[in-house]
Amino acid sequence: MQRIYFDNAATTSLDPSVLEAMMPYLTEKFGNPSSIYSYGRESRLAIENARKSVAKILNAHPAEIFFTSGGTESSNTVITAAIRDLGCRHIISSPIEHHATLHSVEYLHHNDEIKLSFVKVLPSGHVDLEDLERLLAESEERTLVTLMHANNEIGNLLDLNAVGGICQKYNAIFHSDTVQTVGHYPFDLRNTPVHFITGAGHKFHGPKGVGILYINENVKIKPYIHGGSQERNMRAGTENLYGIVGFAKALELATANFEKDSAYIKEIKTYMKEQLQKSFPGVSFNGDVDGRSLYTVLNVSFPKNEKSEMILFNLDINHICVSGGSACTSGVDIGSHVIRAINNNPNQVPVRFSFSKLNTKEEVDAVIEKLKSLV
Amino acid sequence: MQRIYFDNAATTSLDPSVLEAMMPYLTEKFGNPSSIYSYGRESRLAIENARKSVAKILNAHPAEIFFTSGGTESSNTVITAAIRDLGCRHIISSPIEHHATLHSVEYLHHNDEIKLSFVKVLPSGHVDLEDLERLLAESEERTLVTLMHANNEIGNLLDLNAVGGICQKYNAIFHSDTVQTVGHYPFDLRNTPVHFITGAGHKFHGPKGVGILYINENVKIKPYIHGGSQERNMRAGTENLYGIVGFAKALELATANFEKDSAYIKEIKTYMKEQLQKSFPGVSFNGDVDGRSLYTVLNVSFPKNEKSEMILFNLDINHICVSGGSACTSGVDIGSHVIRAINNNPNQVPVRFSFSKLNTKEEVDAVIEKLKSLV
Repeated sequence: MQRIYFDNAATTSLDPSVLEAMMPYLTEKFGNPSSIYSYGRESRLAIENARKSVAKILNAHPAEIFFTSGGTESSNTVITAAIRDLGCRHIISSPIEHHATLHSVEYLHHNDEIKLSFVKVLPSGHVDLEDLERLLAESEERTLVTLMHANNEIGNLLDLNAVGGICQKYNAIFHSDTVQTVGHYPFDLRNTPVHFITGAGHKFHGPKGVGILYINENVKIKPYIHGGSQERNMRAGTENLYGIVGFAKALELATANFEKDSAYIKEIKTYMKEQLQKSFPGVSFNGDVDGRSLYTVLNVSFPKNEKSEMILFNLDINHICVSGGSACTSGVDIGSHVIRAINNNPNQVPVRFSFSKLNTKEEVDAVIEKLKSLV
Repeated sequence: MQRIYFDNAATTSLDPSVLEAMMPYLTEKFGNPSSIYSYGRESRLAIENARKSVAKILNAHPAEIFFTSGGTESSNTVITAAIRDLGCRHIISSPIEHHATLHSVEYLHHNDEIKLSFVKVLPSGHVDLEDLERLLAESEERTLVTLMHANNEIGNLLDLNAVGGICQKYNAIFHSDTVQTVGHYPFDLRNTPVHFITGAGHKFHGPKGVGILYINENVKIKPYIHGGSQERNMRAGTENLYGIVGFAKALELATANFEKDSAYIKEIKTYMKEQLQKSFPGVSFNGDVDGRSLYTVLNVSFPKNEKSEMILFNLDINHICVSGGSACTSGVDIGSHVIRAINNNPNQVPVRFSFSKLNTKEEVDAVIEKLKSLV
């Protein structure tokens, strides 16, 4: 049986055109971008062109874009620097952040004795903005607000402008983990009140092991990884040349085809939702599925019973790839901290389906048929 | 004119067999190694097999090998953790370390008010082990000794066993930046008194953007990059799957062909040295060129004059890639901190030639002829 891959929020396949753009740098163009001879400068040029392209797409200045090893490194850089370099002594986050944020802020809370607050999350899965404003109004010290743009498990979308506006009012630093939205939505960073955003190539058909960090030109931080003068002294280490070229190419493709791809993927998601409702009267959906929601993610709760408890296992046996939550923690069987935070119902089995432009309605039909026989 | 690449200490070409091993993971095998379904577990298996292979080659336990984004991240992890998790309040390093070490220890010295000492370097370019022992004997606090195995500019080799033995005597933590030697020399970590070593794939015909950190099983540190539970909770972030597979393959090839390749490269280096001495009576060599020296690196000083000052520029015009020092800093025209530390003679122009298995004596002849016309 053909594999059906409905776990595109975990990672996506590398687009063949992206690999094609990377290939020269995996073969003959191997010069070190920091070498001053022309062969090295060719590599440097490839990186600077990638940076310009990414900056243009996000409507940022090239000097605001830094390449890293991925979204997790980018978020670690920001959260550490906000405390160390920007004078923040209070962090406001939410209980439904990715562990790259949660474990970083918990670590700093533990070690540096910063104050850590969690904003309330509504049953819809949205962050309670009134609670955020209350926390900021009561905060006596400079504050970092770190809230993700789209939740990787339930797909809820944060209103970056609204949150950024509140942060501006209280002179707070605003970081958003945008790993699920860079490459999936247009960005206009010059007109968005955010200090830091992050991205990871492998979430939108680019390569693994490469990401970006956007640092608004009005904030100055020190590097997280010290050493050579790469990335204008902001991120040391020989650059992942092919990764960077691939990141930019993947973002270019995603941007060029955004209207078409996003409409298509949204149709798949809607179709899957309708088919689930039709075939399984007891299902419910986690998050604001019909409202502000990422078009790639559909998080479904099946009523718990002997059969549904085995659903992930049995889908796997049938070559259907879906997940119970974030891939980054799915090796650990402790359930989803996101689902627990919004709807702590022990009588449900949550399953995340996440789609890409490569999925089809026929695949949805096949998965629904299989689910009927399993649940 | 064909390009001649004599800058293999900066980076090396990706071996076509390494790329071949990576290709399945750049195409159909894209599953997230943290996903629990079989398609994810296949990716996880590739990583664990890579880890086992690397561990076996270095004679370490697989649980002691961690994959990172490169040597710089690995060294940052160690140096930070030694202060934060292992109680070190004093760092002993040398003035000829790579900037990944130097800038990290200087940063910590500045921020955390740790004591920082630099061991004396002899005119041969070797670290003065008597001075190291004196510094350790006088140290009143727990100490991290961080000294590189092979100097990337002059090629001098440190005696890991001797330094490790001294560190043991004073209960110091010993970290060695082995980025220039992993993939170039056999290692026997189970029988080497070192707590941490580092490696970078692109230094031995593997991919850029991936490295390793060896953490001896007797030391326990916390991660530098927090988030998901990848790398057994030691390094968060979706794994650079193809990079890791490529790293292991490159190390396997380097190990299988070590005797042949190292003898061949050493012959090229010796031949180049002889031809330089024959053709340019005024040249001298930096470092312990006939003694404990990396077989890939030859650092030459030409007497300074109008012509020799333009040597790097003119070699570049003639498609000959060599460097004045470390690539990581060569964009910045401040000369080499390594050469200054061992032989601060303003009347010399240092040039580093560094070789790989792909270079030939014919290339040496061509470079010598070109140098004759330039100097």
